Amino acid sequence: MSVSTLATDQAICTPLPVLGSDVRVPLVTGGEVPYAALDYAASAPALQRVWDDVAAYAPYYGSVHRGAGYLSQLSTELFENSRADVAAFLGCRDGDQVLFTRSTTDSLNLLAAVLPAGTRVFVFETEHHAALLPWQRRADVAVTYLDAPRTPAQAVEILERELAAREPYGPALVCVTGASNVTGELWPVRELAAAAHAHGARIVVDAAQLVPHQRVDIAELDADWVAFSGHKLYAPFGAGVLAGRADWLRDAEPYLAGGGASRSVARGASGEVRVDWHEGVARHEAGSPNVIGAYAIASACKALAEAGFDRLAERERELIARVREGLAAVPGVRVLSLFGPDAPSVGVLSFTVDGWNSSHFAAALSAEYGIGVRDGLFCAHPLVRTLVGGDAAAEGECGAVDEGAPLNAIRVSFGAGTPDEHVDRFVTAVGELVRHGAKWSYRTEGGRCVPVV
Amino acid sequence: MSVSTLATDQAICTPLPVLGSDVRVPLVTGGEVPYAALDYAASAPALQRVWDDVAAYAPYYGSVHRGAGYLSQLSTELFENSRADVAAFLGCRDGDQVLFTRSTTDSLNLLAAVLPAGTRVFVFETEHHAALLPWQRRADVAVTYLDAPRTPAQAVEILERELAAREPYGPALVCVTGASNVTGELWPVRELAAAAHAHGARIVVDAAQLVPHQRVDIAELDADWVAFSGHKLYAPFGAGVLAGRADWLRDAEPYLAGGGASRSVARGASGEVRVDWHEGVARHEAGSPNVIGAYAIASACKALAEAGFDRLAERERELIARVREGLAAVPGVRVLSLFGPDAPSVGVLSFTVDGWNSSHFAAALSAEYGIGVRDGLFCAHPLVRTLVGGDAAAEGECGAVDEGAPLNAIRVSFGAGTPDEHVDRFVTAVGELVRHGAKWSYRTEGGRCVPVV
Repeated sequence: MSVSTLATDQAICTPLPVLGSDVRVPLVTGGEVPYAALDYAASAPALQRVWDDVAAYAPYYGSVHRGAGYLSQLSTELFENSRADVAAFLGCRDGDQVLFTRSTTDSLNLLAAVLPAGTRVFVFETEHHAALLPWQRRADVAVTYLDAPRTPAQAVEILERELAAREPYGPALVCVTGASNVTGELWPVRELAAAAHAHGARIVVDAAQLVPHQRVDIAELDADWVAFSGHKLYAPFGAGVLAGRADWLRDAEPYLAGGGASRSVARGASGEVRVDWHEGVARHEAGSPNVIGAYAIASACKALAEAGFDRLAERERELIARVREGLAAVPGVRVLSLFGPDAPSVGVLSFTVDGWNSSHFAAALSAEYGIGVRDGLFCAHPLVRTLVGGDAAAEGECGAVDEGAPLNAIRVSFGAGTPDEHVDRFVTAVGELVRHGAKWSYRTEGGRCVPVV
Repeated sequence: MSVSTLATDQAICTPLPVLGSDVRVPLVTGGEVPYAALDYAASAPALQRVWDDVAAYAPYYGSVHRGAGYLSQLSTELFENSRADVAAFLGCRDGDQVLFTRSTTDSLNLLAAVLPAGTRVFVFETEHHAALLPWQRRADVAVTYLDAPRTPAQAVEILERELAAREPYGPALVCVTGASNVTGELWPVRELAAAAHAHGARIVVDAAQLVPHQRVDIAELDADWVAFSGHKLYAPFGAGVLAGRADWLRDAEPYLAGGGASRSVARGASGEVRVDWHEGVARHEAGSPNVIGAYAIASACKALAEAGFDRLAERERELIARVREGLAAVPGVRVLSLFGPDAPSVGVLSFTVDGWNSSHFAAALSAEYGIGVRDGLFCAHPLVRTLVGGDAAAEGECGAVDEGAPLNAIRVSFGAGTPDEHVDRFVTAVGELVRHGAKWSYRTEGGRCVPVV
């Protein structure tokens, strides 16, 4: 099956080919089933196309940028073409830079490191820790944390109020997610960008959960920067992206000190070492570039663009509807939501089950149904606390898993590689577990809930 | 051919299988030849074994650490086993930590970030920029730059003198390469470590050029930390390593802020966000781990250990001898050396050619012989300046390539995957180019020397 099969009329029903779709896993109750990977929001499987591109390139791998050999030149071209492909995919404006980083976390830490002194950052408490925490580490940067809004319009209101109340001089940055890694809900990025710009602030979009699901056009959103990770974009080879305006990047000290970032280095008259740093993307990409990681991201961007985000998003909406309807029919399942049940979202959805410890529930989905979901607080502790509150589920057999167990939730997430059967199996499994209980016994081991064997 | 063929008596003559060994490249003079990758010191080809391991794992890729599914558990185990494999490969002591980073550059920047306030760093001017530059970025860290020594013993003397002269209180760190990325020469790490420890200082070894060529035992060297990169260790998947003592790492702020590094996050009474960071390796590994990169490094470690460093090093010494003897027979070739022609080294060697611009020479090696070397200053500007000085080669046809051209050199480097034919072809090519000149014309384009076509 190739990506081109998506051009047929039935394409909307066809997931994109991914690695691992034929992996079978054992069940604790006997036998084995195809693994249902429903933790895309953490790490998605590699697209077959991405793997094929990487495998085709791997024998031609060579040193990038300064090598004189044929494969070095080829690899350098591939790396810089990957940068251009990502820029095209994101609709970058003239003058925007695409930096290859390690991950979204790395991208946002990089941006935090280059903020002008005196910047004030505005960030909702609902963000993933990678977007919530980097800013307050700078002694010369102030952070305003915004309470969780209950509608997209309220998010804009809260931001506008806080921006209006700030000292109107000096640089300011708003950091917001494109789609929540807990609820999957879309945030009003365009409106928040307009509010930010109206008050002389800039905006960075944590697009880690958005880019795999929807077309992200940086110019259309009027975002100053977007950040995302390869491993959530079907390209799990250790690279991420920070794309956007060049000025703050150019004016700041390099993110890492080392080769590639340094144009010239010499001893000074007093024995000191003087450095002239590069401008441009090299400034913040010290060290040998991760060519394979960058190429994998570019390959994924092309594969998704060719498949067509309209089709992918339409298919995903169908899967989301099936999950929502399925869960709504199961008593005691509470889907977590900031913006209400009808808010548009990507294929990421968290819930609790009355009477169940979430770790226990997730362990049973894995051991008895071969379904891989996630349980916990999803690196977004304040948001999950706000959503789950004190009404959380009672303890199950694994109630002693950890002190915070009553606050935990279960997250199911999926994307372009997910077949219908995975979400159908998930919905059936949730219903069976709630109605009939787990078939097996579980206990706590190493902080995790595991079947008793 | 498998790694096990190395167990035969002829093994010493057999390079380890690497990707790309059958890649053919076109010559500007017509026809094509197998590519001779002689830029291992920048980026080595992937070991076939590493590629096979990664390819076998890729379908089982899943989210690490918090996923409840079977593949998440498998991937978490693979990631943590990779950490243990690297620790075993390096002979780590009880309590040592192995951190997976992005690269050597990243590892050394991480170490620079966690130095206790008031640390004094001692570093020779001969280091790669990644080891030379990270320290001076900390306002609360002082750096003493040491002049280039001309013998290993002198290196120890210089260090001892400077350590003795320092204020004997407060933390101190020595940073030194295990093997020079310019000359390939081995540095007296054990002796420098002893000197450092005698004066209450610690030592970090930039092992980027050492680990691919020799057994590095952190306890035997009595090094406090070692840093290296996967892409020079036949594992080019975007990961690197910092291994060594845990205390400074544990006591410092996390390198990156984000998920994984944060144990709990909550709003405080005044609306602020309070973080409780993890101790242990998670503290400095925020963001989703690069599982494939880490596993690739572990796979390379196992492959090299199984092949046997004694055999690999013996074979490499033969290749080095062939290159040295070959170059010695060519008039006008000057091999760069700090410690003299008999100093032990790894398969990395730089030289200039009288009457030739190095970029021109390297371009001709590529275009006319299919040989990939590197020209330039190798991200070690002070060292190359010291070695090449004002006696550098006159300008060739590409004399206008860049202002610094007379200071440039040519570097040839090789390793466990290099067949004899590559170094033989290189030696022959150098002789032919010097004696008969290039067959083709070259010009400057985009700062590089390229054939006129």
